Amino acid sequence: MTIEAERVLERILALGAISEEPGLLTRRFATPALVRATETVAGWMEAASLAVRLDPIGNVIGRYEGSRPGAPALVIASHLDTVRDAGRFDGALGVVCGIAAVERLAGAGVRLPFAVEVVGFADEEGVRFGAAYLGSKAFAGSFDPAYLSLVDEDGIELGAAVAAAGGDPGAIARCACDPAGLLGYCEVHLEQGPLLESESLPVGVVEAIAGQTRARVTLTGEPGHAGTVPMELRRDALGGAAELVLEVERIARASEGLVATVGELAVSPGAANVVPGRTVLSLDVRHASDDRRVVAVEAARAAAHAITAARRLELSWETVQETPAVATAAELTAVLAAAVDDLDLPVRRLVSGAGHDAAVMAAITPACMLFVRCAGGISHNPAEDVSGDDIAVALDVLDGFLRRLAAR
Amino acid sequence: MTIEAERVLERILALGAISEEPGLLTRRFATPALVRATETVAGWMEAASLAVRLDPIGNVIGRYEGSRPGAPALVIASHLDTVRDAGRFDGALGVVCGIAAVERLAGAGVRLPFAVEVVGFADEEGVRFGAAYLGSKAFAGSFDPAYLSLVDEDGIELGAAVAAAGGDPGAIARCACDPAGLLGYCEVHLEQGPLLESESLPVGVVEAIAGQTRARVTLTGEPGHAGTVPMELRRDALGGAAELVLEVERIARASEGLVATVGELAVSPGAANVVPGRTVLSLDVRHASDDRRVVAVEAARAAAHAITAARRLELSWETVQETPAVATAAELTAVLAAAVDDLDLPVRRLVSGAGHDAAVMAAITPACMLFVRCAGGISHNPAEDVSGDDIAVALDVLDGFLRRLAAR
Repeated sequence: MTIEAERVLERILALGAISEEPGLLTRRFATPALVRATETVAGWMEAASLAVRLDPIGNVIGRYEGSRPGAPALVIASHLDTVRDAGRFDGALGVVCGIAAVERLAGAGVRLPFAVEVVGFADEEGVRFGAAYLGSKAFAGSFDPAYLSLVDEDGIELGAAVAAAGGDPGAIARCACDPAGLLGYCEVHLEQGPLLESESLPVGVVEAIAGQTRARVTLTGEPGHAGTVPMELRRDALGGAAELVLEVERIARASEGLVATVGELAVSPGAANVVPGRTVLSLDVRHASDDRRVVAVEAARAAAHAITAARRLELSWETVQETPAVATAAELTAVLAAAVDDLDLPVRRLVSGAGHDAAVMAAITPACMLFVRCAGGISHNPAEDVSGDDIAVALDVLDGFLRRLAAR
Repeated sequence: MTIEAERVLERILALGAISEEPGLLTRRFATPALVRATETVAGWMEAASLAVRLDPIGNVIGRYEGSRPGAPALVIASHLDTVRDAGRFDGALGVVCGIAAVERLAGAGVRLPFAVEVVGFADEEGVRFGAAYLGSKAFAGSFDPAYLSLVDEDGIELGAAVAAAGGDPGAIARCACDPAGLLGYCEVHLEQGPLLESESLPVGVVEAIAGQTRARVTLTGEPGHAGTVPMELRRDALGGAAELVLEVERIARASEGLVATVGELAVSPGAANVVPGRTVLSLDVRHASDDRRVVAVEAARAAAHAITAARRLELSWETVQETPAVATAAELTAVLAAAVDDLDLPVRRLVSGAGHDAAVMAAITPACMLFVRCAGGISHNPAEDVSGDDIAVALDVLDGFLRRLAAR
């Protein structure tokens, strides 16, 4: 492991200790923990002589000027928020590697013919408000103002949360960067899947990011006394939700490459002796083919209608998010692949089952992604791990990528 | 409606406004809301010239002496705690009717050859700690000291909660009354089922209370990224829980008179983009026949083993509570039935599907119960309702019951 990679690991450990909850890592959008992580990253950026600014939604941006001031920027970014009980590498790895890449340039006194902007996005996971990519969407100019009135589980509106975290919800439109000022986008991220490990490869080059549909599904029945309402008279909202969970699973299993997940399910009133009157569940469906994804979502929705009709429940189906599959930019990805090849490593191209900020940024600038091997394919879990040796490889690829871009 | 019944309704409205949460009625054991409700009831008892005391767990007891001081007492009681988002009558009706019965005696200057003790139990629903009848068990001397270390959803131990509510957890054994000092137990309660309404009867006499098993079932799998873990590699704890919910429903539907309910289901980590790693659910099974109930619980447990084995999940099955079915006392119930008959009403005998404090008290003294018609059979729901006319009937039955007992 190199000293550079060791420093990256130290910083990832430091960020991993900044959490909303003691004993586990949870750092949702616009929480005090996210603010502390953002300040920490800003400090590292400043120490690396980057010009640092926070934008109104809470993204942190550090700019390393090119040889010609005001030149277009290559953005190296990822996100600083996490899921609940998260691993330490998801998101943080890409931000910290971006800083390390600039530190290597600055340490060598190198200015490129373009600027490098390292960005830590304030939200990618979408845990708090159920809509993901809030940070990169603001940066890419695709933040929907309607998001401001989304509410979290405590009833706090997104706009109020941004303000409480020191941001300016009324100025989110000003987060949008000018695409004319961008050269492209590059994101380093752990694979979050088992492929690179199974092929003993430290890194891989992403050729597409799966599309994703997220829905919020509410089934409403009638609460009642668990001891006195006969089974045949019940309108049990949890019974309907259970059928839907199994049907979603069946649909996903029947479609190659499709993943579908019910990750949240809230029961109310939620007491052992009360028949559930309402359930609210999340649905997450992903596939590299948008057609296959849409077909699966429609099948799940049709199943939900049939189940609720048969059980005399009411159904509310709200599509929270639709992200089409995104191909990475061919030319930029070829440069990234060449940088991998420069290290005498096989160039493994793969599809990302997970969504990434790169998918949002690809709408405004050529985007590429480098995946780094993750232990056991495990992510969104405290066991998430990336080796220092693989980080060293990623930093060399990133440096080669920047130098090849500079030489074009 | 009589003036007496109107006052009962007013008091039930007043108690219904004392809640942990604005806009809905939730009053769990040992909460500030329950303390306020208890103080309110104590005030009414004092105004009715009852000698009032609070016992160490928070039960409120008002004693109306008989003609001979120190005579054995007939206990008229029910509970003051509620489920979440409850109706106003469940529990409160019985306590307030007990006070009204004593007010009628006192107003007429009548002393009976026995004392009357009106009791408001601090816990019957068991919402907060998952174990029910905490108040009546303390009063009946069957409170298990192990309950003191049960924890609520905020991690607060039962003993600490009792202390915070002004009680004395170390002295709960002293709540136990001396059975030799008891004449019997009578509880007025809304039916919480549809039977009396369907037969156009204001009241009914309970001949048995269904037995009940409560279990806490935990399924543990492996959390993972919703986008990258292929369906065939998942160990999704919610998929297993969904199968179990449906199997419990199937078992209950196949057994006449059986009700089985999964009223709580918590998913963790609980994010839209994370495969559930763990689910914890409650199971509640009831039947008038203990054998039928035990067979059903064992069937559910066998199903849980089969489901978790097939899905490579771990299973933890904890029996939280087992309450056998209880027959009411034949002689006392005959007196209650005669009081109904005195009003020229048909005597409808029925089985209670719901558990009641009477089931706990029946272990130490002859117990009887009067059910009052409830609108639409709806209970554990804000729509819960009992008419003033039916309350007037219940008060007349209770008065007749006391006078018949006195004349024995």
